[in-house]
Amino acid sequence: MTDDALVIFTPSGKRGRFALGTPVLTAARQLGVDLDSVCGGRGICSKCQITPGYGEFPKHGLTVAKDALSGWNSVEDRYKRIRGMIDGRRLGCQAQVMGDVVIDVPPESQVHKQVIRKSATERKIEMDPATRAYYVEVEEPDMHEPTGDFERLKRALNQQWQITGVEADLSLLRRLQPALRKGEWKVTVVLSKGNHDNAWRLLDIFPGFHEGPLYGLAIDLGSTTIAAHLCDLADGRVLASSGLMNPQIRFGEDLMSRVSYAMMNPGGDVEMTRAVREAINALAASVATEVNVQPTAIYEVVFVCNPVMHHLLLGIDPVELGQAPFALATSGSLSLDARELDLSHLNPAARVYVLPCIAGHVGADCAGVALSEQPQKSRDMVLIVDVGTNAEILLGNQTRVLACSSPTGPAFEGAQISSGQRAAPGAIERVEIDPATKEPRFKVIGSDLWSTDPGFAAATAATGITGICGSGIIEAVAEMRMAGLVDPGGLVGSAEQTGTWRCTPEGRTHSYILHDGSAEGGPKILVTQGDIRAIQLAKSALYAGARLLMDEMGVDKVDRVTLAGAFGAHISPKHAMVLGMIPDVPLSKVVSAGNAAGTGARIALLNRAARDGIEALVHEIHKVETAIEPRFQEHFVNASAIPNAVEPFPELAKVVTLPDVSFNTGGGGEGGRRRRRG
Amino acid sequence: MTDDALVIFTPSGKRGRFALGTPVLTAARQLGVDLDSVCGGRGICSKCQITPGYGEFPKHGLTVAKDALSGWNSVEDRYKRIRGMIDGRRLGCQAQVMGDVVIDVPPESQVHKQVIRKSATERKIEMDPATRAYYVEVEEPDMHEPTGDFERLKRALNQQWQITGVEADLSLLRRLQPALRKGEWKVTVVLSKGNHDNAWRLLDIFPGFHEGPLYGLAIDLGSTTIAAHLCDLADGRVLASSGLMNPQIRFGEDLMSRVSYAMMNPGGDVEMTRAVREAINALAASVATEVNVQPTAIYEVVFVCNPVMHHLLLGIDPVELGQAPFALATSGSLSLDARELDLSHLNPAARVYVLPCIAGHVGADCAGVALSEQPQKSRDMVLIVDVGTNAEILLGNQTRVLACSSPTGPAFEGAQISSGQRAAPGAIERVEIDPATKEPRFKVIGSDLWSTDPGFAAATAATGITGICGSGIIEAVAEMRMAGLVDPGGLVGSAEQTGTWRCTPEGRTHSYILHDGSAEGGPKILVTQGDIRAIQLAKSALYAGARLLMDEMGVDKVDRVTLAGAFGAHISPKHAMVLGMIPDVPLSKVVSAGNAAGTGARIALLNRAARDGIEALVHEIHKVETAIEPRFQEHFVNASAIPNAVEPFPELAKVVTLPDVSFNTGGGGEGGRRRRRG
Repeated sequence: MTDDALVIFTPSGKRGRFALGTPVLTAARQLGVDLDSVCGGRGICSKCQITPGYGEFPKHGLTVAKDALSGWNSVEDRYKRIRGMIDGRRLGCQAQVMGDVVIDVPPESQVHKQVIRKSATERKIEMDPATRAYYVEVEEPDMHEPTGDFERLKRALNQQWQITGVEADLSLLRRLQPALRKGEWKVTVVLSKGNHDNAWRLLDIFPGFHEGPLYGLAIDLGSTTIAAHLCDLADGRVLASSGLMNPQIRFGEDLMSRVSYAMMNPGGDVEMTRAVREAINALAASVATEVNVQPTAIYEVVFVCNPVMHHLLLGIDPVELGQAPFALATSGSLSLDARELDLSHLNPAARVYVLPCIAGHVGADCAGVALSEQPQKSRDMVLIVDVGTNAEILLGNQTRVLACSSPTGPAFEGAQISSGQRAAPGAIERVEIDPATKEPRFKVIGSDLWSTDPGFAAATAATGITGICGSGIIEAVAEMRMAGLVDPGGLVGSAEQTGTWRCTPEGRTHSYILHDGSAEGGPKILVTQGDIRAIQLAKSALYAGARLLMDEMGVDKVDRVTLAGAFGAHISPKHAMVLGMIPDVPLSKVVSAGNAAGTGARIALLNRAARDGIEALVHEIHKVETAIEPRFQEHFVNASAIPNAVEPFPELAKVVTLPDVSFNTGGGGEGGRRRRRG
Repeated sequence: MTDDALVIFTPSGKRGRFALGTPVLTAARQLGVDLDSVCGGRGICSKCQITPGYGEFPKHGLTVAKDALSGWNSVEDRYKRIRGMIDGRRLGCQAQVMGDVVIDVPPESQVHKQVIRKSATERKIEMDPATRAYYVEVEEPDMHEPTGDFERLKRALNQQWQITGVEADLSLLRRLQPALRKGEWKVTVVLSKGNHDNAWRLLDIFPGFHEGPLYGLAIDLGSTTIAAHLCDLADGRVLASSGLMNPQIRFGEDLMSRVSYAMMNPGGDVEMTRAVREAINALAASVATEVNVQPTAIYEVVFVCNPVMHHLLLGIDPVELGQAPFALATSGSLSLDARELDLSHLNPAARVYVLPCIAGHVGADCAGVALSEQPQKSRDMVLIVDVGTNAEILLGNQTRVLACSSPTGPAFEGAQISSGQRAAPGAIERVEIDPATKEPRFKVIGSDLWSTDPGFAAATAATGITGICGSGIIEAVAEMRMAGLVDPGGLVGSAEQTGTWRCTPEGRTHSYILHDGSAEGGPKILVTQGDIRAIQLAKSALYAGARLLMDEMGVDKVDRVTLAGAFGAHISPKHAMVLGMIPDVPLSKVVSAGNAAGTGARIALLNRAARDGIEALVHEIHKVETAIEPRFQEHFVNASAIPNAVEPFPELAKVVTLPDVSFNTGGGGEGGRRRRRG
């Protein structure tokens, strides 16, 4: 029998020889195996659970004897009895190496475990949160060695956790002495590692070993809605997601009207700042209450937002963002105390991280998309479109990433549409028009039935059919084009030209009657010529932005398209392409990334290194300014048509058949120009 | 004629050859000559004024021609015309080297100029303030290069001042864009260099070149009084000094009664914290008003204070300081935002530096004394005594420095004395007793006359003679001993024993009538046996502390003694030695350092490196705890006697002649023990 033994860890494959009697946790640390521990190996926290393997391991040429680890001990016994532990598991800090052994580290014992993102483009987030709990045993004070309690706490953290440079503000220093004494010089501290400095901030302190979980919020602060995900900082789980309307809407529907409000009303920016901060507080409280979590257990918040929201959140007057050259007050990422943003419902020491902005029109939300979608790692040329009131567009691959913002306006969100409404129960969200009969069928939010299905009337009785939302109008216009009701220039044909009574005169032009609920006292939902023009303007802006980036990149096609944004998740790729919203690619190459900006916020919340990553990437992304680029106007004008997409895109041809209609109404040229963000 | 020329700077003696046409400021910077500039050489700030020398410089073997510098130019002309400039001066950024030249840098053009401290131990403070103004020209924003304004400001500071790592909080970011635009992309920023981190904090921003001076406050926060010095951070001048009573006195006269108040009254510490912060705000406002300075131009505050004041200032419950082992919540120095201490009258971004504490009884005030008096640089063995309610004592030289705190109690401050009062007009502060006639004469605060001088009654009519303050009681007791009215054990003799009617019975002992104002309706001021006992206890504690340090150091004498503290400044060294307050040294070796703690605060305010220095020194100082040291009690008991100091100290013999009296009254032994800080 030798004095040492071979230890092989799975799944890492790391291996080494250790003296008999070495605790498994010690061996793991020496090899750099990712095995968690909060209590530092004192048999308190149970985070270091491992599963020893016994018997034959032909792959490793090893036979593991039953006594390869020291016997089950009283600490483990007590833990299992009181708290429970899966059979076959051991505590890594208690079990000692007594012979050659294979040790499996189950995912839940890994610090850097991976979290599967629930999204179309499934990807993993490696856990590496900035905020973690550490259990320490602090030396008692001694008159012969008169350092302060905080200095001894720092020394203990250095000795037991190799953590240096810990800072604490006065509110924590105030709580230090009672906690140390109540815990008999054993405390659990919550520390947050700074991103810009290398300082560790003391966020909380508890007497003794504290098991309470730590939570974080990932917030996507949009012009219209604020969405928050409450995450467990230990395992990355999303415990609850919630959203509410941005109360700034009462100051202006879109970003530019809010900037105007700030310009016209002294103190208007302060009002808007107060409103959004109050809303975030309310949202934090509600998402915490939903899953019965104390808001004071929320230690970190990560924000993504567009530049105007960014400034208004921070309390900076956004006036400069309303005029060329659209200068940001600050573009870098920000690390703040939550109380600087009056976020008073969280832990009083909670920290905030705001992702960097890319440019005056391309905000931290776009940085969040980039963090989520990682265009800089793509071998293919990928176009990523975050569709909202402004579309933020990324184009790139491993060699280069470009970004721009395009003023699509609110039509894609159902605004400036005659029967338009926000996506809410009762809104038409899906539309199909039979090319032969020209008859529509549709779905409304709140029901899975088509309007032609039996039971549809009953299923929608509660909500009614109230209007048409963004995805609905896109499908409606695309379907009208495919059914030959609209020509490539965007003109709606007359009843004579189209052969359906649903095309009715409306002033000097025509409209299509999608649904007439007037008999039941409901609204008559039309797609008017004006609606089609609004959609044409929006899609032209989006397309022109993408084309501008393609010009800059020197490519005339992209390999794949990712649609991001809460709205992007609902756009049908087929219809988007029929409309000419996005450059043509095979349909199978168009995916929705869901709320990629929010996912980026979640990644930055759960992985500190990702913050360094996105800060570096934002420096590399080349910004193209649509507002001063003559080619943007050119592309914009040229993109006005709704293409006959059958050729040369065979992929699309399988699903779409476009008649080659063209209505000559003698009307003047439309399309053309629009004011930026008008 | 060569292409370059020799430039010699005085007083530094630095020299080098420079291409003809090189501005003097550029040459100075390349040689590392200490020549100030705020505007970075743009002819705006005039800080770089120099005096060229012409003619023969035999020491340098040089003849400087009249045209050794380029001609007087329009920038200089305009500056001199509008703002004035001493004849013979040039602006270093305008004058170019055209031939061999000797350039003198006058003190006011040096950044690291020296300030003479007005104190008995005259010493110089080298200017190196943490907070300074910098003028920068920032690139305008550009849509093609969309960094934020703050990022461009940081880049300008890096390029123009080699300053990196600038941080700004939201309140400054909020003001950044308007200032940059108003100043047409030229701004003056106030930056503070952090001590613990290497970060530069943005404290203020002004459009264009801003000449407004920057101020700092050095505050000595004592148990009884709070003293503030308002300093110009550019040249170190003390513009105003002011003090007020610590309003915490209403919660307890001495430190331990305040700790008790906090223990007995929930929230009592919060009340005391609020009171002292309000007082500091009021003091800051009053000292600024006194010299017509905007309080918002105060950017930095440095505090020295004892540990209990330290905790109460910071809002930390001082309860642990009231009981062994007297653990500080934190002993390290602190860098804070002034608003964390609710110091709302200063610049909103003002910073606070609190000197480190040495131990639970030896505070940041003692660190201030050490910074001022620099015992670690002394070749002699120096004893430094900061006399107050607690005496803080330092002993050391270049090899080692020791510190302790000794519970002298408030007797030295006139408290617990029958006719005692604080040092205020009307208080007896100096006493002499004729050894032959046993008749006293005295001075009172507010008059320079002795009580035996003509006109004394008129001079003191306004204040009256109200009591006796700390220095007065010390002199009275020492004079009584020297006049043979008190024996070495501290007993006051009877009228028969002493031969004066002024020694009258008082209960079972005797008192000395120092002044009887009862005929005029004033008080009768006695020195009672109880007063002498109180002084004996206080001086024994002080002496025992000093002896304890001497034991620890292994020396039985010291080379010199420095008396510090506001009170120390008024103690007569002769009387202190007669009393046996301090170990015997030649009288010429006893000096008063005045308020050395306050001076230490001022040094830390004006010289950033001094902060590193005192932090390092505090780590090196070895703390001796009197409370647990049996030898302290021994020394304390043995020090109770008032020595016959004639032998073996010939220096003292010249000024003092002590009769060898001893009164045997049959009374029991007194002296002995007292509760720590009782």
